[in-house]
Amino acid sequence: MPTAHILSQGDEVVTGQVVDTNAAWLATRLIDLGFDVVGHAAVPDRLPDLVAALRRVAGEADLVVCTGGLGPTADDLTAEAVAGAFGRPLIFDVVAMAAIEARYAAVGRPMPEANRKQAWLPEGCVRIDNAWGTAPGFGLAAGVAWLAFLPGVPREMRPMFDERVVPGLHERFSLRPGRLVTVRTIGIAEAEIQERLRDLPMPEGVALGFRTTLPENHVKLRTHSDISDEVLRDLARQVVQRLGSSVFTVEGVGAEAGGGSFPEVLGRTLLARGETVAVAESCTGGRLAAALTGVAGASAWFLEGRVTYANEAKVRLGVSADMLAAVGAVSEEVARSLAESIRAKSGATYGLATTGIAGPGGGSEEKPVGTVWLALAGPQGTTARRIRLPGDRDRVQQLAAAGAMDLLRRQLDFTPPHPPDRSPP
Amino acid sequence: MPTAHILSQGDEVVTGQVVDTNAAWLATRLIDLGFDVVGHAAVPDRLPDLVAALRRVAGEADLVVCTGGLGPTADDLTAEAVAGAFGRPLIFDVVAMAAIEARYAAVGRPMPEANRKQAWLPEGCVRIDNAWGTAPGFGLAAGVAWLAFLPGVPREMRPMFDERVVPGLHERFSLRPGRLVTVRTIGIAEAEIQERLRDLPMPEGVALGFRTTLPENHVKLRTHSDISDEVLRDLARQVVQRLGSSVFTVEGVGAEAGGGSFPEVLGRTLLARGETVAVAESCTGGRLAAALTGVAGASAWFLEGRVTYANEAKVRLGVSADMLAAVGAVSEEVARSLAESIRAKSGATYGLATTGIAGPGGGSEEKPVGTVWLALAGPQGTTARRIRLPGDRDRVQQLAAAGAMDLLRRQLDFTPPHPPDRSPP
Repeated sequence: MPTAHILSQGDEVVTGQVVDTNAAWLATRLIDLGFDVVGHAAVPDRLPDLVAALRRVAGEADLVVCTGGLGPTADDLTAEAVAGAFGRPLIFDVVAMAAIEARYAAVGRPMPEANRKQAWLPEGCVRIDNAWGTAPGFGLAAGVAWLAFLPGVPREMRPMFDERVVPGLHERFSLRPGRLVTVRTIGIAEAEIQERLRDLPMPEGVALGFRTTLPENHVKLRTHSDISDEVLRDLARQVVQRLGSSVFTVEGVGAEAGGGSFPEVLGRTLLARGETVAVAESCTGGRLAAALTGVAGASAWFLEGRVTYANEAKVRLGVSADMLAAVGAVSEEVARSLAESIRAKSGATYGLATTGIAGPGGGSEEKPVGTVWLALAGPQGTTARRIRLPGDRDRVQQLAAAGAMDLLRRQLDFTPPHPPDRSPP
Repeated sequence: MPTAHILSQGDEVVTGQVVDTNAAWLATRLIDLGFDVVGHAAVPDRLPDLVAALRRVAGEADLVVCTGGLGPTADDLTAEAVAGAFGRPLIFDVVAMAAIEARYAAVGRPMPEANRKQAWLPEGCVRIDNAWGTAPGFGLAAGVAWLAFLPGVPREMRPMFDERVVPGLHERFSLRPGRLVTVRTIGIAEAEIQERLRDLPMPEGVALGFRTTLPENHVKLRTHSDISDEVLRDLARQVVQRLGSSVFTVEGVGAEAGGGSFPEVLGRTLLARGETVAVAESCTGGRLAAALTGVAGASAWFLEGRVTYANEAKVRLGVSADMLAAVGAVSEEVARSLAESIRAKSGATYGLATTGIAGPGGGSEEKPVGTVWLALAGPQGTTARRIRLPGDRDRVQQLAAAGAMDLLRRQLDFTPPHPPDRSPP
């Protein structure tokens, strides 16, 4: 398997002003393509450091992908560093210059003189055209490596890599693309997932990985081997069996109809059933509605949300003022009443409600910070559930919104549609 | 100025399964302490690669901070790599072992045999105790550097660095801590900020930096020199003058009462004025309420939110069905009516509303995706504003919510409280 190294250039990365998301994005792409990623490095905008880093990585990997340092300003030093590191004088590229000029002309602005610098490229390189910004990229062979240089701005770098670099990689390297199955779960801790999968027999050549993207936890099965679809599907089936109802979708094994984030899967299920939802939120403060309406086309199944923060707002929705005075806003009774009231007012199939203490203030011994009541009102009646969440305000709000969505999912009782032929756990 | 290098260990970083936020966090901390950060690197869990990387960085910087590889499993190789790289046999540390056993005893669980491994530390190192997890860290001198080894889990690494590593750094290195002034803006593009500050005369020893944390753009003035507070304050004043009303707060120069995120500053201003807000959202789908209620103590000034997604929900709030039929939901009239209705129903000082087309569907030639109407109803009457936002659904929703908050801020007309003695622009 060919090896790859990722080099990020720029003071803003090295000083921590920006988190280097390019490196992780490129690493995932390169692994999917069939490379063994052997390291990342970040180097500041200083010529000697850049030259030394380029010489080093060009001797260590088959492919080096470098981002940053292609802009028009004085601290953009990549082309100069390549010239110095590999003895490639800079040549003025008239095609690159014309592309930069055309870009400025298209928006009706004069090209600043500084941008001329971006057309000076190392001798003998392959130009990588940039249809998403002014900075052209370039590629060349040096040391034992082939090196690709791309801008640091993600919205330019990503399409350039996918459209302009990847085709060349298939020509240059003998790649066996990887296959990836992702089992997405909600409402189960990563440690618990690892425990349940600990003694799962893994076929040779399949790697088991975990990734948390709150509030979801993902299990990843990755392979570059000639493993049959049947083996991979069977493995996914075993993972699903061990994780049970916390699995909400499986991606990558005949999952044409599956996949997507938790709100996306929930919305698709409601749409398929011709049902709708409305929400009444207290402690989540709009997060639940925001998560649901973040899904494109949500208007087909999301009707209305109420953020009933003040007690008066709860009363206006339909909660009894006497009840609020008697049991307090954070209570099963109020959660149920919120869910039933929003369902009745909106005419939705389901009414979903949250009320709790997000903190940092407002906790008591009886109801500590993190105490949340969730309720769901539907055609089968109303159910409520008390949960206790860890973490700061942001985390409590986020997990409470996920918990409410999970209450609805379990009511809808959808099992992951894939992998097919799943035997009952 | 002493130099520092950051080394991240672990396949999950190198393969892009997790974005390396530790490196950026440590870089910011180290710069604040007075180090010159000269690079980052990420290395996979392979002994020869780790040994080579450790030897290299120990020869390149005065301080190396390494994260990861201290866990109990077979792929946690840091101590072994240090032993190999610097000829330091591993010694069983009984104090470290006792601390790990005590941690398990405290939660009433038996310690897995695998955790014994974490008590084997390189000969002659300084143990760095971990009160936040099981993995002890350690520090030692090698090559030209002092190296600190910490766990990769951020919630363990961060407090260990701050409480257990930083005091030692002050003893070991001659540090001149940096000072940082941050000017926080909203509603102005980074390119525009750079253009306005392009010819700002910068005193020797002050670095100008930019950082985008959507929807805010920050200007940073950083110095490690003996520059007087007066000079720094004057510089901040000039930045504020050039950026005008897009500045909502300044941090770091006598800003005891200032600072914070945009919703925090907005909430603090409302609280100080004894005023309240309620919101009615269509295209932002709960994002506006979520941003405001994300502030601790928001219940003192945030009364209620309505996510009036379906037209029926808008009518229930008070928008005329005839109006909706005549001009459509995305219109100045409906935005004004939403703002006025939520203000009247909730009794809040201000009613804030959004209605627009977040996409990807729903656009037309007259009202393309990204078209948003914002409205604010208050004691002085109602104002509305049409904006056109770029980007995908997520971005449009986020920027529309920020735009609505900015409409309220400009109504409240608060100028940044700092720097003091600000002359009018």
